[in-house]
Amino acid sequence: MTTAKRDTYTPETLLTVAVRVFNDRGYDGTSMEHLSKAAGISKSSIYHHVAGKEELLRRAVSRALDGLFGVLDEPGAVRGRSIERVEYVTRRTVEVLMAELPYVTLLLRVRGNTKTERWAMERRREFDQRVADLLKAAVADGDLRADLDIRLATRLLFGMVNSLVEWYRPQREGEADGAQVADTVVRMAFDGLRTGH
Amino acid sequence: MTTAKRDTYTPETLLTVAVRVFNDRGYDGTSMEHLSKAAGISKSSIYHHVAGKEELLRRAVSRALDGLFGVLDEPGAVRGRSIERVEYVTRRTVEVLMAELPYVTLLLRVRGNTKTERWAMERRREFDQRVADLLKAAVADGDLRADLDIRLATRLLFGMVNSLVEWYRPQREGEADGAQVADTVVRMAFDGLRTGH
Repeated sequence: MTTAKRDTYTPETLLTVAVRVFNDRGYDGTSMEHLSKAAGISKSSIYHHVAGKEELLRRAVSRALDGLFGVLDEPGAVRGRSIERVEYVTRRTVEVLMAELPYVTLLLRVRGNTKTERWAMERRREFDQRVADLLKAAVADGDLRADLDIRLATRLLFGMVNSLVEWYRPQREGEADGAQVADTVVRMAFDGLRTGH
Repeated sequence: MTTAKRDTYTPETLLTVAVRVFNDRGYDGTSMEHLSKAAGISKSSIYHHVAGKEELLRRAVSRALDGLFGVLDEPGAVRGRSIERVEYVTRRTVEVLMAELPYVTLLLRVRGNTKTERWAMERRREFDQRVADLLKAAVADGDLRADLDIRLATRLLFGMVNSLVEWYRPQREGEADGAQVADTVVRMAFDGLRTGH
């Protein structure tokens, strides 16, 4: 028996614990027992807050998705030339990813074994598609090069952005801050590393 | 008892099976029993070929590392201006990654729980450092922009390149071919997505 502490969790604080465990063990590899041990409360206390681990997953990936889709409704994403909109969305996507690091990490790792995971993957594809559409519009405007396959370029752009969940550690000594990372991503992706443009 | 088939494996063909299982289950999650079942031969037959699963891991990541480090010794990587060398190395890294997809996938996923994993991670960092040094030399030549943090740019470049193991599926209908992917990575990273440079 683990010694259960008094249950002072809210659904929100319980979520923080659950996301850490999901990211450490994988969602599939996490049982209610693991969650109970990590939270230091009994399984029945957890069931008092949520219906089960799939609800915790849904809440966690919803937080990441709400952050990402929220960007698409911001003024900078809906007004102006497509090229400015797509650079804005890229910068803000990086910022949301860093602000919601554990939640976006979980979102990027779901594999589609449950209904909630498949829904999350579908929403993620929808977000990628919205960004790909913006890139296409900027190509049509003549602001982005037409000689690159947009589907491929979108994947590489997200490959670059999403790699942050693998190596960005805000607590690490000398780690770049959020604004610097966002700026480097945008300049590298849109202007490239070469001088003399 | 699984029905064991006659053992016609060589260390090389056994490696193909082992890498598939390691990538599916994770190296930590793979037992000799899993390898025996996947290969359809007994555990003692496997021990006839290799000392254990760590030897299989070492052989597999060595194949990926030999491919990557081999690039650094090619004429295109050692002759000419640094900017040309670093573009060459980027292109060839993408090509090796696609040619050795399961092996590089395994290399990128090792987590450092065993001596062999830690060695693989160390060698990977060494490779990244060699590329970062080339980027630095190209900045010093004035060919790459000096306003980007090189450590950050190197991580983002590898983030873009390494994302291939997550989404590149050579068998998929309409998937870009290796040369097209390598070309898009190099043009995007060095020249950027914008027109009018």
